[in-house]
Amino acid sequence: MITLYDYLPSKNGYKVRLLLNHLQRPYITKLVSIFEGEGQTEEFRRKTPTGAVPVLELDDGRVLTESNAILMYLAEGSSFLPSDVWERAQVARWMFFEEDYIQNGIASLRHWTLTGKLARRSDEMIAAKRAMSVKTLTILERWLESRTFLTACGYTIADISVFAYASRADEAGIPLSPYPAVQAWVGRVRAQDHFLDTIYPYSIDRYSSGELP
Amino acid sequence: MITLYDYLPSKNGYKVRLLLNHLQRPYITKLVSIFEGEGQTEEFRRKTPTGAVPVLELDDGRVLTESNAILMYLAEGSSFLPSDVWERAQVARWMFFEEDYIQNGIASLRHWTLTGKLARRSDEMIAAKRAMSVKTLTILERWLESRTFLTACGYTIADISVFAYASRADEAGIPLSPYPAVQAWVGRVRAQDHFLDTIYPYSIDRYSSGELP
Repeated sequence: MITLYDYLPSKNGYKVRLLLNHLQRPYITKLVSIFEGEGQTEEFRRKTPTGAVPVLELDDGRVLTESNAILMYLAEGSSFLPSDVWERAQVARWMFFEEDYIQNGIASLRHWTLTGKLARRSDEMIAAKRAMSVKTLTILERWLESRTFLTACGYTIADISVFAYASRADEAGIPLSPYPAVQAWVGRVRAQDHFLDTIYPYSIDRYSSGELP
Repeated sequence: MITLYDYLPSKNGYKVRLLLNHLQRPYITKLVSIFEGEGQTEEFRRKTPTGAVPVLELDDGRVLTESNAILMYLAEGSSFLPSDVWERAQVARWMFFEEDYIQNGIASLRHWTLTGKLARRSDEMIAAKRAMSVKTLTILERWLESRTFLTACGYTIADISVFAYASRADEAGIPLSPYPAVQAWVGRVRAQDHFLDTIYPYSIDRYSSGELP
């Protein structure tokens, strides 16, 4: 059986959990207390050089890192990743957008906001993250105004990837109310079979509010 | 024939040009003067909602954005992207790493440095970018100490993607001399057949030093 190294408040971990739930695929969870330094142990760094979760491990010990790459691997052969080369590239396109725009905008700002780090950041840093977040949602709003999902292939791992943090922008202090097309898309994602609604707040981990090692 | 919408000083554009040169595949270039505002025209925004280059356009008008997604599409069926599902995911893993760590570290810092924007950034912003750049190169150094290329599949689009900016870290004020394994890997990439060595400085575009619209 596959093993997922995970940190429950992580929405990057959630991306993979959501897909696994859609696929109804069983897996073992091993929790990594990243704020307590467990991501930086020699043993974990052998699995992943960044020290970040999630990490997927196969029965034979082979590992795969980066949430979006894990989604691609697990979705292969399912409706969540098309087989056509052009369509696959369109799915990948939104996952690369997520990795750049969302990770460094909404995801980062949400993390600061929910763990109390915002008070330790300068106005300039916060303004840059807010500008990136608004830019991201503006791009998504315009795109989704005329579309059901991010690509023409129905609900795919592109939607799962972008949904993880974009749907929680309010927790980064960016309300979704000015973005009705994004809100409608969030509703369509939440209506999918085997949607996973379990959210773990940072407060379950008393180390979360510290800086990462 | 395929068309590449490109901005010559962009190393994201260079990634695609490098692969096309390796493949010896002919293409049409259409230049987009992004700093002059051409990325924000209604016509170009219909091709790409971010307004960024590169954009790939097929004969029938279909478009693909995000340099890493374009690499995946163009490399399909070649030695630059393996067909095995697990191996493909390992290639994707480094491309997602690039999109997050490198785009927001070395690439961003290099852009500020080469276009004179560094003087307009706070010490805190610059320190954060430098820390991300050093972290990235430290991860790559450790990884490449025992490897020829980023994955076990030989030279792939993972190497092309990471090479584009990581090889130019010195232009971001981060010398590569403390990273001998990275330097050796840079040499191995440069030794590949049909390596593309043409670099276009920002100075070819008199608008480059302005802020993006």
